[in-house]
This record gives sequence, C-alpha cells and structure tokens, in this order.
Amino acid sequence: MKALAVYSHPNHNSLNFAFLQKVIKGAEENAHISELKVLDLYKENFNPALVFNKEKRRRDMHNDPDLELYRKQILWADILIFIYPMWWGRPPAMLLGYIDQMFSANFAYKDKKGLLPEGLLKGKSVVCITTMKGPTNYPFLYLRNAHKILMKRALFHFVGIKKVKFFEFGNMEKKNGKQKEKLQKIYLYFKKYKGNFSFYKLF
Amino acid sequence: MKALAVYSHPNHNSLNFAFLQKVIKGAEENAHISELKVLDLYKENFNPALVFNKEKRRRDMHNDPDLELYRKQILWADILIFIYPMWWGRPPAMLLGYIDQMFSANFAYKDKKGLLPEGLLKGKSVVCITTMKGPTNYPFLYLRNAHKILMKRALFHFVGIKKVKFFEFGNMEKKNGKQKEKLQKIYLYFKKYKGNFSFYKLF
Repeated sequence: MKALAVYSHPNHNSLNFAFLQKVIKGAEENAHISELKVLDLYKENFNPALVFNKEKRRRDMHNDPDLELYRKQILWADILIFIYPMWWGRPPAMLLGYIDQMFSANFAYKDKKGLLPEGLLKGKSVVCITTMKGPTNYPFLYLRNAHKILMKRALFHFVGIKKVKFFEFGNMEKKNGKQKEKLQKIYLYFKKYKGNFSFYKLF
Repeated sequence: MKALAVYSHPNHNSLNFAFLQKVIKGAEENAHISELKVLDLYKENFNPALVFNKEKRRRDMHNDPDLELYRKQILWADILIFIYPMWWGRPPAMLLGYIDQMFSANFAYKDKKGLLPEGLLKGKSVVCITTMKGPTNYPFLYLRNAHKILMKRALFHFVGIKKVKFFEFGNMEKKNGKQKEKLQKIYLYFKKYKGNFSFYKLF
C-alpha cells in the first residue's frame, strides 16, 4: 500500500508535527506500506482560496495544471492520512481549501442522474488525526459529531471513500492530556496497519 | 443599527452576488439600518491561511496590524451578514480562513476558568445566507444540521453571539429552484429587519 500524509499545521514546533513523525515512523516499520509521501500544505505555500471566474472556469478545475501534482498524489495513494488541529470544531481553512480545489467534479466524483454521484476515488482509505484544546467528548456531546459527519458523509462518502477512521484527541493543551500515550497509539496504529478497518461503522 | 455583509464567492456573476444586491437594497430601504458595509473577501484578496510561528505568535493575533481594519468592521457592526455557497456541506475555505483569523482569543472571546470562555462579541446578531446545489433538506436529513451546529454552537455561541438566523437555499442550480422567490425573500427580510429574531431557537 502507498500512503499520502496531508499535514495542515502552520508550525513544525507543534504536537501535530509530532503526530506526523509517528505516522512516518510507524509506516516505515510496516511491511504493508511500501511508501509514504508527505504533503505539508503550509510549507508548500498552498493557496487555499478556490478561485473561478470567466477565464478560469470551475468545470475545468479537474484539469488545472497548477494542481496536477496534487491530483497525481491522490491517485497514487491507497491511504490518505490527514493531520490537523480542530479550529472552531472543524479543520483549518488551509486543509479545507485543499479539499475545495482537489475534490473536483470529474476528478473525485462524476455527476449522474439521481441524488448521488459516482465516486471516482473508490477503494481508497482515509485516516484523520486531529487535536483539540477542549475535551475529547466535546465534538460528540455538544457538536453532535458535526466534524465527522461533514468529513465522512458530505465529503469522503460522496467521492466513493467508505473506509474512514478518526482519531480526535482532546485536552491536547493540558499537562495531563496523555500526549505521549496518544503519540504512541498513532505510531502503533500505522506500524500495524493492514488496510482493514475494524472500527469502521456506517452511521 | 449598523450592518456588515461578508461576501465569500469568487464570482460576481453568481447567484450569491445577486443575494448580496438584495441585502444591500433591503437594508437601504430599512430605516432601522443606518449603514451597511460590504467586505468582499475575494475582491479584497484576503489570505485565508492562518499562519503562526516563532516570530508571529498566535497569542498576538488579536493585535495583528494587518487585520486591524477587519477587527474594526466587526466591532462597528451590530449585524454580521455572511453570504456564501455551501461547498462540501460547509462554507468555502475563504470564509473559514477569515473566521480562523478574526475570531481570535482576546478579541472575540476571553478564556476563563471552566469549560466556556467569555464571549466578547455579545449583543451582535448574525444572518447566514447560503446556496446549495443539492436539495434544501439535504443538510438536515443527511448531514444532521452539521453546518448550522458548527456555525452556531462551535463559533457564534462561543464568542457570545446568541441571535443566529440561517437561510439555506437548496436546488439553486435547477431551473425550477425558485431563485426569484428566494431573492425576494432576502430583500424583504432586510427591508423589514428590526433586530428581533422571531425564528430564534436555542438547540
């Protein structure tokens, strides 16, 4: 399996960056993962603003030459790993701008008659690793899992990706937030990852 | 009352722009609204990427001189009106990047002991006007109102804004999507707006 880690945190001196290192280390020690590429959106100076107008049409976005490299990365990967902090209950604008531009019609999905399109990224898996300042159960208890629903239902299912696993780590700015244990958990997850999703649930 | 319309669509040849015109026209004819300012994020070339690092600390974001004009606009306004399309069940990265940078600690809220902070934007109202390609009941039936929950609970309530009204218009790419009626609805809403939120519900 080939893996692409999309990292969306502005600072390398961060817990998110430590999680990225654990993903890399785990994947390196996993015989089932032949290669892992890292896309560091901030380092890449990715422009999150999706622009379209008379000259640059939205319907041509799937052929935009500026985005070709990123499209190839997505097509290449069997596993997409997203690492990001939760800001206002959802990913940073940087990651969402990547999504706005990359998951384009006729690249990620194809409109059909009927309500749902044909997902063109079928067969891939997604793992989301996110950190929060607030408690771990805040998104579930107070936000009714809005973050997971948006990522899973409104995005990944729509483009044909059924296997989606979340790690939402709360209390990450607290001294007793068990950061070391969470980092170890991610390391072991990717070291042992075989492509099966035991925690996969349709909801 | 003073109103700020934050417009987040890349194209002026769009239904979103038509909605903006109706907001402007309604507000102009409303004696309760003394002034309306428009912030056109794309025209402004707003950079949606929130950057912080050793030199530019996140804790100083509320004093960032590059953002001072935008902070003043928010403080000035009694009503914040957001006009945007729904992409992947939520606002475009452009608007969310504005939010990432503007709703900063010690400007929009102040951390206190306990779970919830002190909202510093108390007393203001918010109206969100969004357009969707899919059917109007899609966010409710399939996405469990994730968009509203994120905007209302994770963001506006957090900064002290209790009065939040949504217009989510679906089928906006269909011929029979009743676009004219929706535009008229927005025009009349702002023409008659008195600051009361008859549809306001805590959820």
